Amino acid sequence: MGNRIITISRQFGSGGRTIGQEVANRLGIPCYDKELITNIAEESGFAKEYIEEHGEATENGGWLAGAFARDFNGHSNQDTIWFAQCRIIRELADKGNCVIIGRCADYILKDREDLDLMRVFVHADIETRAKRIVEQYGESNVEPEKRLRDKDKRRAAYYQIYTDQKWGRCENYDVCLDSGTLGIEKCIEIIVCMY
Amino acid sequence: MGNRIITISRQFGSGGRTIGQEVANRLGIPCYDKELITNIAEESGFAKEYIEEHGEATENGGWLAGAFARDFNGHSNQDTIWFAQCRIIRELADKGNCVIIGRCADYILKDREDLDLMRVFVHADIETRAKRIVEQYGESNVEPEKRLRDKDKRRAAYYQIYTDQKWGRCENYDVCLDSGTLGIEKCIEIIVCMY
Repeated sequence: MGNRIITISRQFGSGGRTIGQEVANRLGIPCYDKELITNIAEESGFAKEYIEEHGEATENGGWLAGAFARDFNGHSNQDTIWFAQCRIIRELADKGNCVIIGRCADYILKDREDLDLMRVFVHADIETRAKRIVEQYGESNVEPEKRLRDKDKRRAAYYQIYTDQKWGRCENYDVCLDSGTLGIEKCIEIIVCMY
Repeated sequence: MGNRIITISRQFGSGGRTIGQEVANRLGIPCYDKELITNIAEESGFAKEYIEEHGEATENGGWLAGAFARDFNGHSNQDTIWFAQCRIIRELADKGNCVIIGRCADYILKDREDLDLMRVFVHADIETRAKRIVEQYGESNVEPEKRLRDKDKRRAAYYQIYTDQKWGRCENYDVCLDSGTLGIEKCIEIIVCMY
């Protein structure tokens, strides 16, 4: 069997990042999250903050806004980031067992039959997520439910553009977990147990 | 904590029934599947075969066909079965820990805070399911992919009518498992491990 890779896709505020990090911790394997952004920044030449904002969700102005700013190859900045992201995620998967958070890694790796891939999606009801983002990121002048809906919409649009799949549909994942009903700890245990 | 109930919703041919039965077996708790049909038949007065056909999927002629055949209370046969089904599922959940296969038990029990409920959805790609239904139920003059699509459509329509929820959407379940990529045995282990 090839390298064992766990990809964690998650709704904003579902605790998917915390789950992924703790799973990696318990299994003693690396978890790629922020490091991924640093690598993509180096490879694509964009700033880390720009990658963080544009590498997983469409722009606030909608993807059409970005679509008009293209280089001589017809690529938008977002496309350039996407290509760097694909290359880096493939390289990390080749390096060894790991957990990869977000960034469409589930899609990028799905046809790699040489890997032992487990694609996880973490979701939760909007109340649980609203509570969590206020705890984690603090209050803002936009109400948490609206922040969640915006972010979900932008992540879903991004996923749809680059993967031509619907984001969050259970058929795209090996396992979907509701961190709201199960709790963060139970989600960690399930993934560790599956591994 | 209240009784621990595992509900298994599943795509036709995904092996959800086999998974549920084996989970119950390993946990030493009852699995309600065929027994459920017998009980609903007794309670509603309909034949078991009729329940089997109409208690989980809309009729072949579409739900409108059934909608015109109503009793003096405005209830169709399908409604009568639905009410019996709700009562029986609630009674079984009150009796003790168990696994319940299909029949919208996930929805019927979802607001019961006195229960420790785990709602599982089992799905698989169409090729895996086609192979499985031919192995399990034999060939028929309708190609397996068409049989699957028909059954999925009828189950989804039934679920939508009675629950006003979309069937197979991950947000309706605590855990969704892909039995095609994970395999039947792994799905059983995950559920047992979660329990």
